Amino acid sequence: MNNKISNKGSLIVVSGPSGVGKGTICGKLIEKYDNVKVSVSATSRSPRVGETDGVSYFFKTRDEFVSMINSGELIEYNEYNGNFYGTPKAYVEEQLKLGYDVILEIDVNGAMNVKKVYPEAVLVFIAPPTMETIRERLIGRGTENIETIEQRIEIAKKEILIAPQYDYIVINNDLDMAIKDVVMLIDAARLRVCNNKEFIENLLK
Amino acid sequence: MNNKISNKGSLIVVSGPSGVGKGTICGKLIEKYDNVKVSVSATSRSPRVGETDGVSYFFKTRDEFVSMINSGELIEYNEYNGNFYGTPKAYVEEQLKLGYDVILEIDVNGAMNVKKVYPEAVLVFIAPPTMETIRERLIGRGTENIETIEQRIEIAKKEILIAPQYDYIVINNDLDMAIKDVVMLIDAARLRVCNNKEFIENLLK
Repeated sequence: MNNKISNKGSLIVVSGPSGVGKGTICGKLIEKYDNVKVSVSATSRSPRVGETDGVSYFFKTRDEFVSMINSGELIEYNEYNGNFYGTPKAYVEEQLKLGYDVILEIDVNGAMNVKKVYPEAVLVFIAPPTMETIRERLIGRGTENIETIEQRIEIAKKEILIAPQYDYIVINNDLDMAIKDVVMLIDAARLRVCNNKEFIENLLK
Repeated sequence: MNNKISNKGSLIVVSGPSGVGKGTICGKLIEKYDNVKVSVSATSRSPRVGETDGVSYFFKTRDEFVSMINSGELIEYNEYNGNFYGTPKAYVEEQLKLGYDVILEIDVNGAMNVKKVYPEAVLVFIAPPTMETIRERLIGRGTENIETIEQRIEIAKKEILIAPQYDYIVINNDLDMAIKDVVMLIDAARLRVCNNKEFIENLLK
């Protein structure tokens, strides 16, 4: 961090295709970087073994989730495999107010919805250097068969088509470089005038 | 510079009140930083001793300057003390095409005009930590009387009122920090999706 003139954190949306390494990037970021918080999602699915409420997810019943939707408590949500997933507004706004930068690791549809609610959110798309890299990484995981991998690559292509609507693109060619780039974008976001309105007002007093 | 995925340079507008040190920042930037070019302005005023055509300014007669205005050769221009000053489009576009980042050190009115012609330009406002700093620096120069200094401070206040229309604000509290911040903003600009359309298209091929 350079000239820290802003006390206001930024909302940073991180998306990217399956297998691009966005989870690893976000994980390393909160480890290394005190100022960054990763938002915890709410879900209506049941906790798996080892998952903790409020850490892995905020676990809700389906009724509770629907009531959160109806009362506007979520920034964005979607239904996947019969379960709801969404981003609670309260946690995000609380952390931003405390001065933290908040990262939302969400899919492209979620990202577009966040931009509608928070036009000042910074949208970062993590891209692979080539499509072949994605294929290799998914094969390397060894958890999916070749058919599922090809499906994921087709989904990745659709996601990349939406990348031009993001603010920034970071290529995950080298993990440390990609992390450095995301940190730079977070630091740069702090220098935005929208994060420094108070400073400008005080200057004129 | 981190992940250099973009071959396209960015147009960076640097403005700020008289005495804020923006000239020093831009000067150090091109010294240290190969990728940055500072645009050379055109003017209708006569060259002073030691000034070189094409380096200090592109010197034009008043008729030549008016003809440049009429043929749309300038990104922005204004008249000051009976002389025209403006930014020639050709030089800027040539350097951007070559992959350089081009800095325009211009006033707030010029900056607003650039944003109309180049919506993708990055507008950086260099601010003093306090108004008192501006006063001290202007007094320190020893070239102006107290009345002129107070006039400049009044102009500075009017300029700061326009700062909220910029993209970023960099405080020149410590020169090295301020340079680091501007370099960071230039690096971040290279990761914008608008600078990387070709990469995204190639990814999908």
